[in-house]
Amino acid sequence: MDIKSKIRTIPHWPIEGVMFRDITTLWLDPEANKEAYRRFYEQYKDKKIDKIVGIDARGFVFGAVLAYQLDLPFVPVRKKGKLPGDTVGAEYTLEYGANNVEMHVDAINKGDKCVIIDDLIATGGTIAAAIKLVEELGGEVAECAFVIELPDLHGRDQIKGYDIFALMEFEGE
Amino acid sequence: MDIKSKIRTIPHWPIEGVMFRDITTLWLDPEANKEAYRRFYEQYKDKKIDKIVGIDARGFVFGAVLAYQLDLPFVPVRKKGKLPGDTVGAEYTLEYGANNVEMHVDAINKGDKCVIIDDLIATGGTIAAAIKLVEELGGEVAECAFVIELPDLHGRDQIKGYDIFALMEFEGE
Repeated sequence: MDIKSKIRTIPHWPIEGVMFRDITTLWLDPEANKEAYRRFYEQYKDKKIDKIVGIDARGFVFGAVLAYQLDLPFVPVRKKGKLPGDTVGAEYTLEYGANNVEMHVDAINKGDKCVIIDDLIATGGTIAAAIKLVEELGGEVAECAFVIELPDLHGRDQIKGYDIFALMEFEGE
Repeated sequence: MDIKSKIRTIPHWPIEGVMFRDITTLWLDPEANKEAYRRFYEQYKDKKIDKIVGIDARGFVFGAVLAYQLDLPFVPVRKKGKLPGDTVGAEYTLEYGANNVEMHVDAINKGDKCVIIDDLIATGGTIAAAIKLVEELGGEVAECAFVIELPDLHGRDQIKGYDIFALMEFEGE
């Protein structure tokens, strides 16, 4: 099934020159969206994963369903100030701007094998920060999963040595 | 199964006097979390719902899984400035602060029967705004679903005439 055609492109959003890949149009198509969920499930069902880590906010959608399918705990990575318990934090730069993310200190146990999931990898700042948080708590990053990879933005360079699984690529950013 | 005991209470967060009900500890328990998902599914499986509307960001978790279970489109309500397409917006006051939410104009079709889902109803401002957005686009709100209701904050008074389904209550706020 062609799921790539379900992604809507919004030119020059949020700033001039960025071709924004809008995943909400995939969410409106249950059959295509289910195919995306199925591909993630197939990738991880036999990998003995302990926890699914989803990145705020679009990563929550894919992470929640993957955790549900695999019968695993779901751990949120959130923007600074959103998690009420004791947290660890990491700062990073975005494709357009800067940000801070946090994770609850008791969300990951030492040795937990984690898949970190988000909708998209662009310059790789967010995922690099999420990896840092998981490892700071003693977890192990089994793989980083995305619906979309933008290879021209070289996000992979930020997380060298880590496995990446992406359902599709958009080139020419 | 007792899922209420899986909710962690963080006193005086984010401000003095608020007993924050932290749902992330439910997410860490796959069996309890699955029971929450099951109760939502049972509530809506025979109701001929067209779309699941989830509120940013914790509502994305419950909304995504419910939409997946029911094989329905998932529509996000997001904080202002997060959705890239053409939007409708609504302003509201929170238990602590003020906010704006938006929805894509093409996310709802006239006559769509929607369930709006979030983790919690407190003073009811967010859900009242989400209802306004759905109806502005011609949708119908079949029911509003929450994991937690805080009855002492009288959120129901903000959305009189609408059906509410909540998995649990916490009193004495």
